[in-house]
Amino acid sequence: MATAQVWIDGRWTASTGGDTFTAIDPATGRPLAERFPVSDRAECERALAAADAASARLATVPRDEIARFLDEYAAAIDAHADELAALAARETGLPVSPRLKDVELPRTTGQLRQAAAACRDGSWALPTIDTKAGIRAVHAAIGPVLVIGPNNFPFAFNGIAGGDFAAALAAGNPVIAKGHPSHPATTRRLAELADGVLRTCGLPTGTVQLLYRMSGSDGLALMRDSRLAAVGFTGSKVAGLRIKQACDEAGKPSYLEMSSVNPVIFLPGAIRERAADLAQEFAMSCLMGAGQFCTNPGLVVLPAGADTDAFIADVRARFAAAPSGTLLSPQVRDALLAAVGEVRDAGADLVTGGGAVAGDRVAVENTLLTVTGARFLAEPRRLQTEMFGPVSLFVVAADVDEMLAVVSHLEGNLTGSIYSSRTGDDDAAYRRVEPLLRRRVGRLLNDKMPTGVAVSAAMNHGGPFPATGHPGFTAVGIPAALRRFSMLQCYDAVRPGRLPEVLADANPAGTWRLIDGRWTTDPVAAA
Amino acid sequence: MATAQVWIDGRWTASTGGDTFTAIDPATGRPLAERFPVSDRAECERALAAADAASARLATVPRDEIARFLDEYAAAIDAHADELAALAARETGLPVSPRLKDVELPRTTGQLRQAAAACRDGSWALPTIDTKAGIRAVHAAIGPVLVIGPNNFPFAFNGIAGGDFAAALAAGNPVIAKGHPSHPATTRRLAELADGVLRTCGLPTGTVQLLYRMSGSDGLALMRDSRLAAVGFTGSKVAGLRIKQACDEAGKPSYLEMSSVNPVIFLPGAIRERAADLAQEFAMSCLMGAGQFCTNPGLVVLPAGADTDAFIADVRARFAAAPSGTLLSPQVRDALLAAVGEVRDAGADLVTGGGAVAGDRVAVENTLLTVTGARFLAEPRRLQTEMFGPVSLFVVAADVDEMLAVVSHLEGNLTGSIYSSRTGDDDAAYRRVEPLLRRRVGRLLNDKMPTGVAVSAAMNHGGPFPATGHPGFTAVGIPAALRRFSMLQCYDAVRPGRLPEVLADANPAGTWRLIDGRWTTDPVAAA
Repeated sequence: MATAQVWIDGRWTASTGGDTFTAIDPATGRPLAERFPVSDRAECERALAAADAASARLATVPRDEIARFLDEYAAAIDAHADELAALAARETGLPVSPRLKDVELPRTTGQLRQAAAACRDGSWALPTIDTKAGIRAVHAAIGPVLVIGPNNFPFAFNGIAGGDFAAALAAGNPVIAKGHPSHPATTRRLAELADGVLRTCGLPTGTVQLLYRMSGSDGLALMRDSRLAAVGFTGSKVAGLRIKQACDEAGKPSYLEMSSVNPVIFLPGAIRERAADLAQEFAMSCLMGAGQFCTNPGLVVLPAGADTDAFIADVRARFAAAPSGTLLSPQVRDALLAAVGEVRDAGADLVTGGGAVAGDRVAVENTLLTVTGARFLAEPRRLQTEMFGPVSLFVVAADVDEMLAVVSHLEGNLTGSIYSSRTGDDDAAYRRVEPLLRRRVGRLLNDKMPTGVAVSAAMNHGGPFPATGHPGFTAVGIPAALRRFSMLQCYDAVRPGRLPEVLADANPAGTWRLIDGRWTTDPVAAA
Repeated sequence: MATAQVWIDGRWTASTGGDTFTAIDPATGRPLAERFPVSDRAECERALAAADAASARLATVPRDEIARFLDEYAAAIDAHADELAALAARETGLPVSPRLKDVELPRTTGQLRQAAAACRDGSWALPTIDTKAGIRAVHAAIGPVLVIGPNNFPFAFNGIAGGDFAAALAAGNPVIAKGHPSHPATTRRLAELADGVLRTCGLPTGTVQLLYRMSGSDGLALMRDSRLAAVGFTGSKVAGLRIKQACDEAGKPSYLEMSSVNPVIFLPGAIRERAADLAQEFAMSCLMGAGQFCTNPGLVVLPAGADTDAFIADVRARFAAAPSGTLLSPQVRDALLAAVGEVRDAGADLVTGGGAVAGDRVAVENTLLTVTGARFLAEPRRLQTEMFGPVSLFVVAADVDEMLAVVSHLEGNLTGSIYSSRTGDDDAAYRRVEPLLRRRVGRLLNDKMPTGVAVSAAMNHGGPFPATGHPGFTAVGIPAALRRFSMLQCYDAVRPGRLPEVLADANPAGTWRLIDGRWTTDPVAAA
């Protein structure tokens, strides 16, 4: 079978890179047939040159054209849902239904449509007008963006269809997509659909391009090139930190979603009041999708006592009884087993699971670990190692004071949940723990598990380092996610006919603008 | 004379650092009498511990208390304007009037009052509410901020009174101020006024603190400490890049205003039409304040021809006739002479000036250099060396095409100006040059010099690297400047009584909030 082609500057062409790779079917552990190319530096360079040319031309394209592409691409994905879900299931081991076809795919096309609406509307860019000073400012396209997708969402975070892709494009930027090597055929099919739509829109050929893989050094060289404006990345902390360093040194923004253990705090009253419900809720959240979510509840803080003992026994039984989900790849399995080993070495005790599932299928047993609060406080770093999979560590603290000490040693996370009594018994404890947790997490939840990231304007799928690289930005949630891929552009005494449409006096699109301190969709009033 | 004291955790105390330094009177080149301390690492640690404690307590202080401090501090500065202007003049060589007393000081107190109003109002934080999903988000305090002021604005950018200080505090953060060593007595007097006001407000003692100086390694250790949340810096590129690296490695935001040559493009019609006016306007902008502005027009691009020859002769005459302003410090003089040498080594020709002014006074001659477009294109990096002072480099391009080539080799800058004919002769050229310049500058101007940074909501005093460290943020302009010193905090299913006031249903402060896609000052409607 021929090696797959890369999509550069509007054409599918044989890669000039000599190396190839195959994905693995995690249901069998065996390589899939098709070979995909590892692009070489010259190929990265061609993609970058095309993106650079597209960037300048995109600035002159009406934003409705970009919005139309996003909408029609969403429609094309919806129209090919069965085929895409089957491809992705084969490459990821995730079930076609409900996960891929009924949940992730509609979410993906929903994101693309929300991004299209935001692009058309323009309010995401916070246009700001000072009529007295004659100064106007707006967030505008930053330039070519490299979007690197993760292994765990073949649609919703795919470099060529996911949230970063939609946000970067809706903000007016060309995207060089790097698919994740664990699902290249799914990624290619998405790119083919994008290609079909792109040909019917008035967008430059280099607006969207696809590379499957490149060497680490070629990838970093691409990121250091001054023509690349920004990077969006979802993946491991190890890779994320390398990307961050390359972008930091080049003085360009990188938006990284790297790692998170998503602490869940069960206050004493909650455990006392509804332990059985909480055990069910926790186990479902932790084992869903074989635990392969950025927001998986990987670290739980509880107060010692008979209620907690019973709670742990209940969770243990649920973990042991539930099937062990297929993992995305052998790499995920190996990294997970290594992380569990690290946490055990740091002093955690195994309650259930802990090993790989026997046989060809790529899977690890549902795994529960416990550690005392005192032990956690002696090794807080190692005991916060992310265990990406159906695994969680319960930190059993002596009392509420020790729970607070544990929370005060947490690193930055995407989410933090606090469960408390419904009758007010935990209110004093809540008031103590909330400020400590609040500054360490991007999203704070009450009586709710962190899995399930609503695509809402008020969502924050972000958080302090090392969950991400900057605590002020979110990867999910439109319009805010678009602003990551922008620069602030101010116009001082610029002649009226030369202003971008979004800052001109007239406002036919009804964009929300901050005019002289007041948000309005009105045009600028005649003086 | 005793060494000055540092202000830590509400008390003025003798520094534990053994080293001291003195400022220099640039009018005489001689050291001033008073000694100021170089803080050691233990002292930095004490300030950080106090700021960390203040950070947690500030979260529970009504934001009106912070606003009251900012307002009353502004009033105290206004009440001591004569004394402050005299102190600053002695340390900086800048004239008391109009510069220090009539321009910079009122600007400074205006910034503090605007920050107070933004703090009270809360709209800066972009509160966003999704009533259907039950999710709410807002930008909130990030934690202790280190603010490092530059040499050239003893009030308006001072670490203890300037724009970064006001923005960080108004966003709810404690500030550790590091004054610039060239004006320590001015900085101390400001801190004393802040202290007097702080004692009357209900703010924690560690809310504002002052250190004068520390070693580079102690400063970087402070920045790497996890308790420090962010850094605001205005100063040299060399120092800025070191700070950036330390913060980047620690995964925390730094907001750096580093260097800019502020290109000014004179299109052919403008020169033909109004060369004499432009020469006057340019010379005034370039020589004002002895050219010591971040937005000084340090690089000018013009078309070759008789009009430009006459224009250059006119500017030369104005430079030669104007007095050479006193520079801020011997360090500024030495760095300027070195930069001029670097630009001459790279091929620029001296038209006028070029040397230090004879005598004790710290000054450099008003200096004009020229280079051909072709030569510039051969050495674009070195010929963009910032020459901080009354100096500019004219790049004389063969034609408009070569002007475009020059612009396409510019690095990131704070500003870019385009002068064009008033009769439309340059419109075609404008349409070609504007897109190239636009993406390289934070603020684009028409027919206007870049000096003079209005404190406007629509201002962008920022720009692509290496002008700053991130192209999405501005150091001047409220409310946007506040958002730099914030993290995004999302509340998912959090019980109503536990929401921060700015996200609760009621909206007594009339804060602008994005509720279900609509900006409004209304409360959340009852379901």
